[in-house]
Amino acid sequence: MSSPLEFLRFIDENADRFIQRLGQAVAIPSISGDGTHRQDVFKMGSWLEDQLKSLGVETKQVDLGKHTMDDQELPLPPAILGRIGHDPKKTTILVYGHYDVQPASKSDGWDTEPFELVVDSETGRLIGRGSTDDKGPIMGWLNVLEAHKALGLSLPVNMRFCFEGMEESGSEGLDDLITSEAAKGKKGWFDGVDCVCIVVNLSQSDNYWLNTRTPCLTYGLRGIKYFKVTVSGPARDLHSGAFGRMVHEPMTDLVLLMSKLVAPDGTILIPGVDDMVPGPSSEETAIYDALDYSVQDVVDAVGAPITLSEDKTTLIMGRMRFPSLSLHGIEGGVRETQHEEQARFGESARRKPWIADYKHWNYEAAKKATEAVYKKSPDLTREGGSIPVTLTFAESLGVNVLLLPMGRGDDGAHSTNEKLDRSNFIEGSKLLGTYLYAVAAATE
Amino acid sequence: MSSPLEFLRFIDENADRFIQRLGQAVAIPSISGDGTHRQDVFKMGSWLEDQLKSLGVETKQVDLGKHTMDDQELPLPPAILGRIGHDPKKTTILVYGHYDVQPASKSDGWDTEPFELVVDSETGRLIGRGSTDDKGPIMGWLNVLEAHKALGLSLPVNMRFCFEGMEESGSEGLDDLITSEAAKGKKGWFDGVDCVCIVVNLSQSDNYWLNTRTPCLTYGLRGIKYFKVTVSGPARDLHSGAFGRMVHEPMTDLVLLMSKLVAPDGTILIPGVDDMVPGPSSEETAIYDALDYSVQDVVDAVGAPITLSEDKTTLIMGRMRFPSLSLHGIEGGVRETQHEEQARFGESARRKPWIADYKHWNYEAAKKATEAVYKKSPDLTREGGSIPVTLTFAESLGVNVLLLPMGRGDDGAHSTNEKLDRSNFIEGSKLLGTYLYAVAAATE
Repeated sequence: MSSPLEFLRFIDENADRFIQRLGQAVAIPSISGDGTHRQDVFKMGSWLEDQLKSLGVETKQVDLGKHTMDDQELPLPPAILGRIGHDPKKTTILVYGHYDVQPASKSDGWDTEPFELVVDSETGRLIGRGSTDDKGPIMGWLNVLEAHKALGLSLPVNMRFCFEGMEESGSEGLDDLITSEAAKGKKGWFDGVDCVCIVVNLSQSDNYWLNTRTPCLTYGLRGIKYFKVTVSGPARDLHSGAFGRMVHEPMTDLVLLMSKLVAPDGTILIPGVDDMVPGPSSEETAIYDALDYSVQDVVDAVGAPITLSEDKTTLIMGRMRFPSLSLHGIEGGVRETQHEEQARFGESARRKPWIADYKHWNYEAAKKATEAVYKKSPDLTREGGSIPVTLTFAESLGVNVLLLPMGRGDDGAHSTNEKLDRSNFIEGSKLLGTYLYAVAAATE
Repeated sequence: MSSPLEFLRFIDENADRFIQRLGQAVAIPSISGDGTHRQDVFKMGSWLEDQLKSLGVETKQVDLGKHTMDDQELPLPPAILGRIGHDPKKTTILVYGHYDVQPASKSDGWDTEPFELVVDSETGRLIGRGSTDDKGPIMGWLNVLEAHKALGLSLPVNMRFCFEGMEESGSEGLDDLITSEAAKGKKGWFDGVDCVCIVVNLSQSDNYWLNTRTPCLTYGLRGIKYFKVTVSGPARDLHSGAFGRMVHEPMTDLVLLMSKLVAPDGTILIPGVDDMVPGPSSEETAIYDALDYSVQDVVDAVGAPITLSEDKTTLIMGRMRFPSLSLHGIEGGVRETQHEEQARFGESARRKPWIADYKHWNYEAAKKATEAVYKKSPDLTREGGSIPVTLTFAESLGVNVLLLPMGRGDDGAHSTNEKLDRSNFIEGSKLLGTYLYAVAAATE
């Protein structure tokens, strides 16, 4: 079940060098959402491909075509596919990650240059854009590959890789690539994949550890839908002194409509929505009971005593399993180009929920690997939001998908001073390697 | 009751010259809300004082002190007081007006230079900033004075004047001046004032004719109060994926709170507010029935069929006599410097309602003068909003106050392409003179 001691020792002994490699990756400002950095995203893709090649991975850059951003037509960064190991007796796992990052500049409030990895020897923090999202996790896999190559060890599983460079900008082109590659069967790069492991923090979810103490495995995401309600009325701005109590006011109607959507205690008032999720089984409740999380953790995280419940399990179920409805804002006095006579209820974005079988050997292997490395049972969590690629892999390959976070709850992906703790990077690299051995053992 | 024919003829014969004088007034950009134009406001005050003096009015500039605007200490424009006529057998009327204007620049969307009066010979419009608010009405009084001086006619009443230069910027200093001047009794400039006549369009009210057809007299204003509701919660912005349905969300509470204030049909849901105004007497209802106004006028004005009633009288009572409550907007994600634990309900501005006795000889005189000049009975109206000086005069002098609009409902004071129709300026000047004779006749 455990990985070879020489592997663990190699990771420890080469930690500083691994951090230097992370620094090289962070130094390439591969911001996918800023057209002026598009060439940096390409540079980062090539850098990553070179790293994989040098570690014995067969690779392929897949051109995903062009897209339009800020009125400019741009080439999409390529997907980097990779494969190593073709032993039909071994289990095959597919790893996903992304090599692009969110924008960052010192003027946003960073304490250090965002694209220079700073190693804070006092706190053990590795600070820089992409450190936790998602260059650190990708480097974790490179560390595992390098250790095996250097030690002359054969990997315990066959590995397949799928890295993209547009995750922070909607993953354009990726779904088509995955489904077409999956449809190729034996001729495709995902042939024989038995399970998927995703080590990322992706936007619209906060897939880290729940806190700074206990590792976790994530097996569900609530999904997300955005709706926009438009109520129109007069053809021009009106003076409340002259027209108040003469005409229907869109703001009054809109506020009343919105007040019927969700109650202050979080109950969703739209008939049927709360009923879509059946109550938890006692087994599921036990998972929430066991989480390393308290009401005080929530109070500390939000900075005010405003939790909807004083009961930890009820509270965490609000986050992990029940639908939630947030009112994001109201904009008044907006003039549409065309006058509309009635309310319109429009859905502007939608991501499906996802849930995986946490008793699958993929999860069992990750649990055992976590226990071996961290001497702790991982929290078994679900999260809000969505990670679309999770569902695409699950549906197109028909295999179990595991979310195995490397970072902590306070890493601040997408934020200023993004960091990954040195211990999470190094122990996390051990965890990834150990997980491969645990998968091999579980599927013998 | 009617004014001398030679007066009416003089106004007609000198119309072009009167329009030229209006042009001179419009050409001084006396924008009180822009510190860089403060000297122009002073210039306008002196110009006006010179005009009054040349027409035989005794004047006084009253220094109102200093104030701070945009972090700059500025001298307040003076009030210009004036008096002409001291015949104890004559009635004394006090006239109010303001010589400052709203900002305007061609880049705001004006079709012409705002500070050059344009005479559109096709439509009869006199276009320029201040044309209707409030330089046109002030010039109307100058026209009346000039006609009497030129014709060697004695004014039928004693006249007192109070002109300010800060109306568009909150009338700073004016209330104190009026109350202290009133308190001086026989030693003050308002000694012996029997009634007040205000010919203005003031902000927060739209005191014009109800339409473009029928003159009106205004005898009431609803007053106004602004409230701001603040609901605070978490100490920082939260991700709905991570905290949705875990914590109380201020936006949910705020929307629910606001939905309890006013119903879509305009009914105010706050207990007691609608009850503060008793139902109309049959006499008052008859006034609304008689107004030259239709449901279609409202539909045309707002550009959509969104009236709260199909009954004209119900509709106009919503505007003129009942309280109205408008929800102006909701701002989310605002960070206060200090964290607040609970909802706060704050009143940010308040103006009292005002109502005058429309059976007073002051109103009767205005009604008869209107009928004489326009061959039409005026609409008897109340309006939303507030004109604070109205109440100050009524309370400090204890006399009847009349609002006698000169402009039409489409003049666009405070807006681009502000105009006063030539016929409103010229017939309006006749109306003001005729009103003086009607006052004299009514109080003989």
